[in-house]
Amino acid sequence: MTKTRVEAFSDGVIAIIITIMVLEMKVPHEASWEALEKLWPVFVSYIFSFLMLGIYWGNHHHLVHSIKEVNGGVMWANLHLLFWLSLIPFATGWMGENHFEAKTVAVYAILLNLCGVAYYILLKVIQNCNRNNEVFHHVLEKQSKKGMLSLLLYTLAIPAAFLHPAIAGGLFIIVGILWLIPDRNIENAAKDL
Amino acid sequence: MTKTRVEAFSDGVIAIIITIMVLEMKVPHEASWEALEKLWPVFVSYIFSFLMLGIYWGNHHHLVHSIKEVNGGVMWANLHLLFWLSLIPFATGWMGENHFEAKTVAVYAILLNLCGVAYYILLKVIQNCNRNNEVFHHVLEKQSKKGMLSLLLYTLAIPAAFLHPAIAGGLFIIVGILWLIPDRNIENAAKDL
Amino acid sequence: MTKTRVEAFSDGVIAIIITIMVLEMKVPHEASWEALEKLWPVFVSYIFSFLMLGIYWGNHHHLVHSIKEVNGGVMWANLHLLFWLSLIPFATGWMGENHFEAKTVAVYAILLNLCGVAYYILLKVIQNCNRNNEVFHHVLEKQSKKGMLSLLLYTLAIPAAFLHPAIAGGLFIIVGILWLIPDRNIENAAKDL
Amino acid sequence: MTKTRVEAFSDGVIAIIITIMVLEMKVPHEASWEALEKLWPVFVSYIFSFLMLGIYWGNHHHLVHSIKEVNGGVMWANLHLLFWLSLIPFATGWMGENHFEAKTVAVYAILLNLCGVAYYILLKVIQNCNRNNEVFHHVLEKQSKKGMLSLLLYTLAIPAAFLHPAIAGGLFIIVGILWLIPDRNIENAAKDL
Repeated sequence: MTKTRVEAFSDGVIAIIITIMVLEMKVPHEASWEALEKLWPVFVSYIFSFLMLGIYWGNHHHLVHSIKEVNGGVMWANLHLLFWLSLIPFATGWMGENHFEAKTVAVYAILLNLCGVAYYILLKVIQNCNRNNEVFHHVLEKQSKKGMLSLLLYTLAIPAAFLHPAIAGGLFIIVGILWLIPDRNIENAAKDL
Repeated sequence: MTKTRVEAFSDGVIAIIITIMVLEMKVPHEASWEALEKLWPVFVSYIFSFLMLGIYWGNHHHLVHSIKEVNGGVMWANLHLLFWLSLIPFATGWMGENHFEAKTVAVYAILLNLCGVAYYILLKVIQNCNRNNEVFHHVLEKQSKKGMLSLLLYTLAIPAAFLHPAIAGGLFIIVGILWLIPDRNIENAAKDL
Repeated sequence: MTKTRVEAFSDGVIAIIITIMVLEMKVPHEASWEALEKLWPVFVSYIFSFLMLGIYWGNHHHLVHSIKEVNGGVMWANLHLLFWLSLIPFATGWMGENHFEAKTVAVYAILLNLCGVAYYILLKVIQNCNRNNEVFHHVLEKQSKKGMLSLLLYTLAIPAAFLHPAIAGGLFIIVGILWLIPDRNIENAAKDL
Repeated sequence: MTKTRVEAFSDGVIAIIITIMVLEMKVPHEASWEALEKLWPVFVSYIFSFLMLGIYWGNHHHLVHSIKEVNGGVMWANLHLLFWLSLIPFATGWMGENHFEAKTVAVYAILLNLCGVAYYILLKVIQNCNRNNEVFHHVLEKQSKKGMLSLLLYTLAIPAAFLHPAIAGGLFIIVGILWLIPDRNIENAAKDL
């Protein structure tokens, strides 16, 4: 099946993105607590981006699991999503290294926005070739609702970063919690497969 | 099946190449827009190479999907292709860091040429062990035609880079568009599998 | 199956963690035996972390192999484990570069502890959705016992590192040996699958 | 099957090793032919190591393809092989950066020797749990013969490196050619599966 290979490639890319991000956390040359302490913004950024990528992986997993057909359009929309996701280590590193300076947090929020839009495009493209698939429509409904809310929060986070980076951080955390709350409906629908 | 493992290995290598390329985009130490702006040639190179590798992944996917038998020759021809593809992050980084200096663009064009030739060799080797496979022949026909045109454009891009790097860039973009235009025939043929 | 994709993603992440760790072993610029000799603490740390990650991969493999159902909770518990594992290259590099300085060994022991706890949580979450699975219960029993002992040894290694890093090292080696001793029972149970 | 996951993990690790090796080829800061020329020893080392890893992947593929059962011993012997293979980027980088200085070539030869021994151990461990498997025995016979010859050549390359690095290089190339010559017998045997 074509679907399997799209899954395998996406898993590969997301697994690599999530793991090379740790390379931005440069090993300090001294063995002091201070050297470790200085890394906390990088570490906090890493935790959050790891979580975000984990959520993307989980959603992508549920999404592709629910569909049967994959065409050229889906492949390109998927690659487009992977492109924006691949920039997360860069934006994470920039934000962490500059201790959540307003501009870097805003750029991070913009990137998460672009990832969200790319995911939404993927949803729409998949919808076009899975018209009569009920399981997919359950997934679509749930993910669209949460996705829209996430996009709204990411957009608010852009100006919020300039008021105070912590406000943007708070909005990011709300998005994280939003997705961590289990969606019994999706899982139940998936079980009916 | 042997085929599955060739697919898995190729997917793995291409996924890693596409992702480690982002490591060439070094995180700037200052949190200024200027620091970000300076990265634009690296970013533009990244976008294009990501697209090129995505196209290779898509074509490789269609190609291997269409065949049934894989022998030692196919494995070596595939590895040969992966070798040239693995140099793309290097050439991309060199071109980006030197702001599309003529020599670096020419080297990039030469590398894309070598990747194209390696893909063509892979096509020919596969043809030798898939004589009576009609689906493969549809894929072959389409990919050969577009492949030849791409090679011509890459070759023109080598001297063009010395006239003006932007001309080479334009030729690269034409190749990109060429492959992004969907090939209904290939997909239809693949559906008949 | 969902299970397959959790396996594939975990394998991918562990494979990348285990391999990028070698990037912390910076290539010396001179071709002298002294330059190579200076790397021995980095090399020793690398060997041990490679072994530890290999053990995690093996245990994870046995564990996921023994179960049938995977739900959202398992996915998150798995991601949580991968998060702590992903920090191993960092802690390994810090410890190696600082020649097993007490603080760095203690941090390494703390990280192994956190990995162990994350694995234990994964075991418990899986237990909740695999109540009537005998094969899993064999795996669980064995892995819990060894896991608990490992956690104890890692915890002892934290203060031990401040007495003398070599004591902590000795405790780490005991954990390694503990897991390398084959568990006929687990394999026999798995064969009955 | 357990076998599938050992394959997937090995493919992942080898794919990552082969690809991160390109990161040792540092992008030069100037856009001059001289800057590129200086990289030739790194490039030549890269080509050879890529080929060696490709051969290992191919052999590993044939080997695992031919067997049916995998136990704990095979998993550890496999991990042991991956450990030595994971050091290839390091030894390659050291040799390339120091322009084939005798010591670095000798260390490279020693590493290839250790990889060869690890592969031989894997063969022997697999033999123990695949007693009545004829296809495996064909693979074993062929790979043992070539493997022994390779080990001999690698061992000769160690002192040869101190006479002149080019002699060691010549021995390495002979090993490469040895494995590139197709083994019709293995493929025929595999077809009978």
